[in-house]
Amino acid sequence: MELPKKYKHELSHSYALGPFPTFELLSCRPDMARAVYYREDFTQRDKLIDLCEQLDIPCHCSQKALDRISQKEICYAAGEFIKYQEKLCRERPHIALVHPGDMGNLGTIERTVLGFGIRDLAIIGGGADRWHPKAVRASMGAVFRLRVQEFGDFDEYLSEFGNNRDIFPFMLDGGTVLTPNTCPESELYTLVFGNESTGLPPEFQNFGQSLFIAQTEDVDSLNLAVAVSIGTYLFTQRNGGAA
Amino acid sequence: MELPKKYKHELSHSYALGPFPTFELLSCRPDMARAVYYREDFTQRDKLIDLCEQLDIPCHCSQKALDRISQKEICYAAGEFIKYQEKLCRERPHIALVHPGDMGNLGTIERTVLGFGIRDLAIIGGGADRWHPKAVRASMGAVFRLRVQEFGDFDEYLSEFGNNRDIFPFMLDGGTVLTPNTCPESELYTLVFGNESTGLPPEFQNFGQSLFIAQTEDVDSLNLAVAVSIGTYLFTQRNGGAA
Repeated sequence: MELPKKYKHELSHSYALGPFPTFELLSCRPDMARAVYYREDFTQRDKLIDLCEQLDIPCHCSQKALDRISQKEICYAAGEFIKYQEKLCRERPHIALVHPGDMGNLGTIERTVLGFGIRDLAIIGGGADRWHPKAVRASMGAVFRLRVQEFGDFDEYLSEFGNNRDIFPFMLDGGTVLTPNTCPESELYTLVFGNESTGLPPEFQNFGQSLFIAQTEDVDSLNLAVAVSIGTYLFTQRNGGAA
Repeated sequence: MELPKKYKHELSHSYALGPFPTFELLSCRPDMARAVYYREDFTQRDKLIDLCEQLDIPCHCSQKALDRISQKEICYAAGEFIKYQEKLCRERPHIALVHPGDMGNLGTIERTVLGFGIRDLAIIGGGADRWHPKAVRASMGAVFRLRVQEFGDFDEYLSEFGNNRDIFPFMLDGGTVLTPNTCPESELYTLVFGNESTGLPPEFQNFGQSLFIAQTEDVDSLNLAVAVSIGTYLFTQRNGGAA
């Protein structure tokens, strides 16, 4: 067995670190998995070996491989997979992140929106590396259940998906204060969130009804993953889960 | 000037890293601040120097000091402060975290609950170091506006604060599914959340009405900071902000 390479953005593959994300990879995207590594003392090793055998994926007991690819923490199992592209679904609500900057936030957002029944995530204008093992790990493997599509800018997103849906940009100077009572009804919607430091640029006020999550003046803003959580939760509760 | 020590849990002081947390320290807890450091190219240096002069706090231009205490990232300003203890307010709603394990989550939770008008945070049974610069940074200085009190166990918390309030433990097998419509009315409440990996132990079912945040079966659970955000948001919306 050749040792796996330490992750770099330029590689065409990445790693799911930890047992839960590894099993999510194998159950949701086995077509993209190309190797699995585990520690000798991994308690679910038999289950993992059986599954890899069924799927015809090489499965190696290798502490050395795990040490090479893991991010400091102890890692009992990991999956190596090919990065892939997907298309969003036209008939489903979307979450759009404009230039998200933090890999941990991005993964947490993937896990959260999936937990609230959203399956489609647009990433606009680049940002954090969504395939970085840290992002995949923070998603707890949710990334393998989502459709994620990247767009150069918001116009590109709108020209492909903008014609049949309501757009709701979340802004600190948003026009409507979002509460459980004021949450808009919408048959099909996209919730748009800006970068952690800079938020959405002012021109997003022109793209539909802008919203502001009620918050006290004691804080400068909410954490991005928290804002996405509240917005997604209220919309899926009001308009029916997208499950 | 003696160079500041690299942070360790055992020290009686810690650091607020970054301009925003440093200004929060100086405006909310100047009594605990004992030194401030800034980079020569910090754009708000004049404001910082003036404020420190007013407060009689030593203020040093020292790249070396910042390099010593910062966590890799570029840091334009930092405040050194004495760790302190506080008492929760009996007449206000509380958030209680049982053995929170992650410093980033803890800081994000502090920032979020403050943003929703909660001022009192109980930490039960130890856990992540709440004074670690990483936690203080993740809170964006919210820690300086909160009352945070630590308790050895939940009984200790209850014997001091349990007699005049409703207790709501958040559990994956909680008795009531929490939605904007089902969120309980309560004049005074404590929302209780467990550890990231293990949640709350089963005996918490006995401490009041347990709640479960509606989520799809596609995820194992929600991120702790996300769960606290949703719970706090719904309760403060339903029962009036605690601002």
